[in-house]
Amino acid sequence: MGIERTRLRWNGWGWIDAPDVLGDKAAAVWDWMGKTMGLDPLPNTPPTPLDGIALPEIRISGAVQDALTRMLDRQRVKTDAFERGLHARGRSYHDALWLRAGRIASAPDAVVYPETAEETLAVLELAAEHNVAIVPFGGGSSVVGGVTAECAPGQAGVITVDTTRMDKVIEVDRHALVARVQAGIYGPALEKALQSEGVTLGHYPQSFEFSTLGGWIAPRSAGHQSNKYGTAEQWLVSARLATLQGLWSTEGFPGSAAGPQLRDVVAGSEGTLGIITDAEIKIHPVPEVKDYRGFVFPDFEQAVEALRELMQSGVPNAMVRLSDKSETFFLNAVDTGGGGEGPAQFCLMLVGIEGDKTTVEYGLARTKDILKARGGIHMGESLGEHWYKGRFETPYLRDPMMDRGVGVDTLETCARWSNVLAVQQAGVTAIVNALSANAAASGARGIVMSHLSHSYVDGSSLYFTFAFPRALDREVDQWLAVKRAASDAIVSAGGTISHHHGVGTDHLPWLAPEKGPVGMTALRAIKRQLDPAGILNPGKLL
Amino acid sequence: MGIERTRLRWNGWGWIDAPDVLGDKAAAVWDWMGKTMGLDPLPNTPPTPLDGIALPEIRISGAVQDALTRMLDRQRVKTDAFERGLHARGRSYHDALWLRAGRIASAPDAVVYPETAEETLAVLELAAEHNVAIVPFGGGSSVVGGVTAECAPGQAGVITVDTTRMDKVIEVDRHALVARVQAGIYGPALEKALQSEGVTLGHYPQSFEFSTLGGWIAPRSAGHQSNKYGTAEQWLVSARLATLQGLWSTEGFPGSAAGPQLRDVVAGSEGTLGIITDAEIKIHPVPEVKDYRGFVFPDFEQAVEALRELMQSGVPNAMVRLSDKSETFFLNAVDTGGGGEGPAQFCLMLVGIEGDKTTVEYGLARTKDILKARGGIHMGESLGEHWYKGRFETPYLRDPMMDRGVGVDTLETCARWSNVLAVQQAGVTAIVNALSANAAASGARGIVMSHLSHSYVDGSSLYFTFAFPRALDREVDQWLAVKRAASDAIVSAGGTISHHHGVGTDHLPWLAPEKGPVGMTALRAIKRQLDPAGILNPGKLL
Repeated sequence: MGIERTRLRWNGWGWIDAPDVLGDKAAAVWDWMGKTMGLDPLPNTPPTPLDGIALPEIRISGAVQDALTRMLDRQRVKTDAFERGLHARGRSYHDALWLRAGRIASAPDAVVYPETAEETLAVLELAAEHNVAIVPFGGGSSVVGGVTAECAPGQAGVITVDTTRMDKVIEVDRHALVARVQAGIYGPALEKALQSEGVTLGHYPQSFEFSTLGGWIAPRSAGHQSNKYGTAEQWLVSARLATLQGLWSTEGFPGSAAGPQLRDVVAGSEGTLGIITDAEIKIHPVPEVKDYRGFVFPDFEQAVEALRELMQSGVPNAMVRLSDKSETFFLNAVDTGGGGEGPAQFCLMLVGIEGDKTTVEYGLARTKDILKARGGIHMGESLGEHWYKGRFETPYLRDPMMDRGVGVDTLETCARWSNVLAVQQAGVTAIVNALSANAAASGARGIVMSHLSHSYVDGSSLYFTFAFPRALDREVDQWLAVKRAASDAIVSAGGTISHHHGVGTDHLPWLAPEKGPVGMTALRAIKRQLDPAGILNPGKLL
Repeated sequence: MGIERTRLRWNGWGWIDAPDVLGDKAAAVWDWMGKTMGLDPLPNTPPTPLDGIALPEIRISGAVQDALTRMLDRQRVKTDAFERGLHARGRSYHDALWLRAGRIASAPDAVVYPETAEETLAVLELAAEHNVAIVPFGGGSSVVGGVTAECAPGQAGVITVDTTRMDKVIEVDRHALVARVQAGIYGPALEKALQSEGVTLGHYPQSFEFSTLGGWIAPRSAGHQSNKYGTAEQWLVSARLATLQGLWSTEGFPGSAAGPQLRDVVAGSEGTLGIITDAEIKIHPVPEVKDYRGFVFPDFEQAVEALRELMQSGVPNAMVRLSDKSETFFLNAVDTGGGGEGPAQFCLMLVGIEGDKTTVEYGLARTKDILKARGGIHMGESLGEHWYKGRFETPYLRDPMMDRGVGVDTLETCARWSNVLAVQQAGVTAIVNALSANAAASGARGIVMSHLSHSYVDGSSLYFTFAFPRALDREVDQWLAVKRAASDAIVSAGGTISHHHGVGTDHLPWLAPEKGPVGMTALRAIKRQLDPAGILNPGKLL
């Protein structure tokens, strides 16, 4: 197993013993945040400890438990409270509300750790025989309810399949730059193994340390440097799944006209068609140079145009991340231990270029020209390096914020360049209005910010972050009201319901309108064919 | 309608009045070819004229014909011999054998020309009501039997839907570089309309002049410059189809994690799920510079390595086309009006780079370095320009070859770099052996050649061409024996059954092994859902 489970926070982000990311600026940041949000002083709202929570009764029979134990072995079939709690839900703000409140209606009845595709298949077949639901679980970092341990009415319980013992790099083909890897490997273990052979996948989502290869593919994840390395569905060469029709390997040719290709149906299937057990992925030589630097723009719209022109120029980059003025201000306030009144006068654009020296020099020179023409001011490498160093730390901020009565959630979408500004404005406006209409108290003020990242020739992803005083007596309703308003606004303005978080339970209401009736009928036909009893990750996606 | 039908050869390639592409070298080329193939003199084997052929009886009822006429109008419902002959089959060597022999078992009972998605939908619904098969037909240039006008047992005939009156450019979004275009537009009309607005799709398959946008998407076509502009499935943003469940638009976001994406199921569906009526496609600014030039390599394996390194370097190119020594020799012989004994001592690599001046200069400088390190010798621009000028002429060679007892066919595949040489050798060997085992007469000799084009980071397409004396008494069996042997060999060595020709009827036996049982069951589930009666392009793909 890649990570000793007991070192993980069962109801929050990351390592139990992780240091406070705010360090010696903590007091100043909390002071500033409380004042900014109209929460002065910040309240004390700690989570319920696990030993204070009554988990639901185990529903699967002793016979099923025995069969699992025979199939795997006692060490790989878990029914203790910690494992059931850890695997009850994912890591969204919505999940955190339930977990921290100790309201766990949906813990798995057993957690199993197969080590091979064949073992996974055997577990699926056993579950089908006994009408038990199967929930796949890698790092469990879903933020859309993708791993909630729930079953459909009439089903006899939930077995969560934790994939993290399927953690081997099977083959590295340096010639074709393709590797075959088991799907349960965590990000750091994967990169360590690949980089020891001089190659990299280059997929660094914010969840990198606590998410897995299969968990990236199943909901179409994107890493920070997706402009170079691709999103999961782009670097996926082929996937092997355990399905109720047997093991299934999708096509894996560099290109093929042999009929419809199903790889892009597996990416995004979120465990509803089968469990990804291993995959072939596109790898790259470890870049000789990683150049990260900052630019600032006095005008957000001009910065968006610059980003569009950069993406359409074909000039290589690994990452461009353009924060609006509000986010630029917020990030600076957290970095510096507080600030005055936002927003900032500038928008920050971080540009990362990775590759051999010649490519990076060429890319940087052309990038500077393109950005300058739109008013971008080059700020050198320090801002880029600062971001790069702290890029996996932000998720650690949520738990201490929630300990202090502050909620924080994110939303993301993707739109065509023609719609990007409209979607950004619609999203921000909807969140601001919904936070205001659902404020914890009079005088409570939220902070709403956005950035562009993961960009394409034809459009860009947009990412919204909002922090707000929690309405402690109705916090799920408060969240749901903001989520609904923002999602409706984004979709109405021309954005997809998700660019890289997936659908899970939380985005399900918006999926059918996006796919249309014929698309949904096609997806449901595949689902019925591969999982006729509907035991695979019920309640998610479809 | 984009092209007046009567200007087209009903049973061969292109314009009726096209000039002889061999020009004043014709006599020398035919003399050389006959001697090389052991056919001296070349025989005279002209095709059967249309008025010497008895087409099958029309099977659809007068009521159906009347309904079609009411639905469209008399000018867009055709039942004359020319239209039925033109739409009987595609343009493969296999098709040509049947058409030239006047054996047309499978002419459509009617050919209709809808102008809108709604009209197409109405035709489909009428056909479903009367149990009549629907065959979609754009330019009809399929080389895998993709448009053969056949129905399944029990069906009451075939209506071929000719899409070429759906030929409008609907919208050009220069900001997001996406255009929406009706699917029946021919290549030249599409590029003329786009280039008048300063943009291009850049999709130039060899069939460019006589194939349509929808005909490129349906079988996942690739243009010569696919390294820059993408294959059809790569530049397809979204497709709209008329299906028996209604009109269906696939997703069209630059990126999305909203569940499985079905765009890549539509690309490759070959008319079996619905008829593509219009599509959104990725466009590019018309390139400032198009730089085409030649390099020669003394060693084919080193040239393949150079191509791999070039693709993996990320250095921009639009096209790299690497001919083996046999093809290098053959092309030179046709160009120069004959030659001595093959193969050549060198392999020709043509490199095309397109884009703005800075990009092309950068790309060219780095390309030269990479190729030189593997023994590539720069030959300047003349070879590239010569290829560029004549790039759509080659298909015109087949008819005069067939008039002289010579057959010619092509096969293509795609494999990972680790398998490319093995697939190339397996393909060539299988074709050589099969041609020998099925020779027209003792002393009859075929010519077998191959090239790499449409390359990727992880592998490359391979293209095989073979010319041979036809066994006139058993020419379909001769073709089938070579096709089977080559396809088996390519697939066994690790190649896909098709990189850009599609499946149609001719590659159908190799599809199921490639997809595997679970993949096939998923595809068939979609098919059953969208076309329960199986009237859409029966006998193709599935």
